[in-house]
Amino acid sequence: MSTLEISQLVERLRAGDVRALARAISLVENDGPLSRDLLSACFPHTGRAIRIGITGSPGAGKSTLTDRLARSYRSKGMTVGVIAVDPTSPFTGGAILGDRIRMQEGLHDTGLYVRSMATRGSLGGLARTTADVASVIEASGKEIILIETVGVGQDEIDIVRLADITIVVLVPGMGDDVQSIKAGIMEIADIFVINKADQEGADRVEKEVRAMQSLTTRHEGRTPPIVKTVATTGDGLDKLALAIGEMKEWLQSDGRMEARRKQYWRDRLVQLLLSLLMRQLREHGLSESELDHYAERIACGEEDPYRLADRLVAYDKN
Amino acid sequence: MSTLEISQLVERLRAGDVRALARAISLVENDGPLSRDLLSACFPHTGRAIRIGITGSPGAGKSTLTDRLARSYRSKGMTVGVIAVDPTSPFTGGAILGDRIRMQEGLHDTGLYVRSMATRGSLGGLARTTADVASVIEASGKEIILIETVGVGQDEIDIVRLADITIVVLVPGMGDDVQSIKAGIMEIADIFVINKADQEGADRVEKEVRAMQSLTTRHEGRTPPIVKTVATTGDGLDKLALAIGEMKEWLQSDGRMEARRKQYWRDRLVQLLLSLLMRQLREHGLSESELDHYAERIACGEEDPYRLADRLVAYDKN
Repeated sequence: MSTLEISQLVERLRAGDVRALARAISLVENDGPLSRDLLSACFPHTGRAIRIGITGSPGAGKSTLTDRLARSYRSKGMTVGVIAVDPTSPFTGGAILGDRIRMQEGLHDTGLYVRSMATRGSLGGLARTTADVASVIEASGKEIILIETVGVGQDEIDIVRLADITIVVLVPGMGDDVQSIKAGIMEIADIFVINKADQEGADRVEKEVRAMQSLTTRHEGRTPPIVKTVATTGDGLDKLALAIGEMKEWLQSDGRMEARRKQYWRDRLVQLLLSLLMRQLREHGLSESELDHYAERIACGEEDPYRLADRLVAYDKN
Repeated sequence: MSTLEISQLVERLRAGDVRALARAISLVENDGPLSRDLLSACFPHTGRAIRIGITGSPGAGKSTLTDRLARSYRSKGMTVGVIAVDPTSPFTGGAILGDRIRMQEGLHDTGLYVRSMATRGSLGGLARTTADVASVIEASGKEIILIETVGVGQDEIDIVRLADITIVVLVPGMGDDVQSIKAGIMEIADIFVINKADQEGADRVEKEVRAMQSLTTRHEGRTPPIVKTVATTGDGLDKLALAIGEMKEWLQSDGRMEARRKQYWRDRLVQLLLSLLMRQLREHGLSESELDHYAERIACGEEDPYRLADRLVAYDKN
């Protein structure tokens, strides 16, 4: 694919061509040689959409909630992109895809675009890919980007970190184990949702969140609101949309949105630089088989990895 | 600290000086300029110890199990290092430290060294630090390194991946949520422990593990054994030590240990190269404040991050 073809592809996806959009997303997912050219061509058309991350334990009802939110924004005439990411398990991929296909079929709507990602990438890889896919979808003109992921680990925390607004979904009836797992994502929540709020124990979850909030430092003087929903019936969805709207206004005042995005791009720029530097090193002769050879020598104790790294990098400069 | 002082420090920690060991570990944890010199000086004295990773949900009894295992190896005259890592929560740090202090007091034993790490590092940072701390402890002459961590995310998976043998600890009475979270670590278990096996439901957990094992690909033709323990009383600990011994023998035949360590060092070498390349970039003038400046321009849409990265890397080469 040439640079000209890349700009034609971006033109087409900007004009609403869904197949061009799908093609562009695949290019970015595969991180091929022209991936960065494509992202560069998309970049001028990004920065205006609001990215909303939705995370929570498996079974918390995130898919249904995301579905409801998407429909709600569509009914207000806004265009929506949905990215569903599940890196935790090879077993759930099918289920998510099923949900998503149902969602697409129910709408037949060019103002909505849904993409599932179930690939477990390398360290930080999935968060990187999700961010780039979000940029491509945004370039196609979507005003709201919903990013849904299972909130269980560092990967997921990195994924939601790329969102402007992060929603953490809890449900009644979780054991203490799950409560302690949630500790890592308590800090990143802008809005808490207690879904399945018609079930017993919803008030207890709310109390626990309040108790945890009193222990952690607050978000720049703002205490994340708690919204109770029943995603299957749509109960509480209006309140959630309201909370999101308020959060958006809060972000857009006093330069908070800019500060968040600046932090995001700082991290992303370092990532981009590292991947370029690594590519340079490979172009200067550090092949996969050489890496294998060195790794073997290190594992046998024949080569000091720290001295070797110094040598390899110095060689690159000569 | 000079290079001479580094080699003196390594000499002292090799001679059994606990304060020198603690100092060396701190140097590596802080990743200062001489950290790699220190690791390089330690490297010739590593590669002979067995690294055992112990992971599982919060409350599974990992600390008690690790404690028991450490005592068991000590009673056989083997020297032991323990690294307890908990990156999930700032709240549990105290509890872990408490346990560890109890463990140290109970033994007053120069053949045992225990270190807690509760710092949440940057992406991949904690796994890197844990690996390096393990190397330093190994250089001090410990034959067994036990690495204990909460098994909830990518960070933890990376931490146990640096072990030669990985033990996944389960307990009866976990909900389905926790079962699905475990999916990610099922593949890396060499040995399953069902702890608190005197509680109701232990047989059910065993059945579930067997069912999951039949779905996943087996480890190079080996089905990980399941050992039932009651860590608090010591029940089943002999069987666990036996399973570890068998796993060790299996690893040491047919070059499996070498293959695992080769893979580990391959990843680690790439990491080392990337950190050196990044340092070069900084030395060529990419300061923190410049990064901030660029990030701000990107966030405002004034600078294309992909083109910018190309320019910055090209500048480095001129």
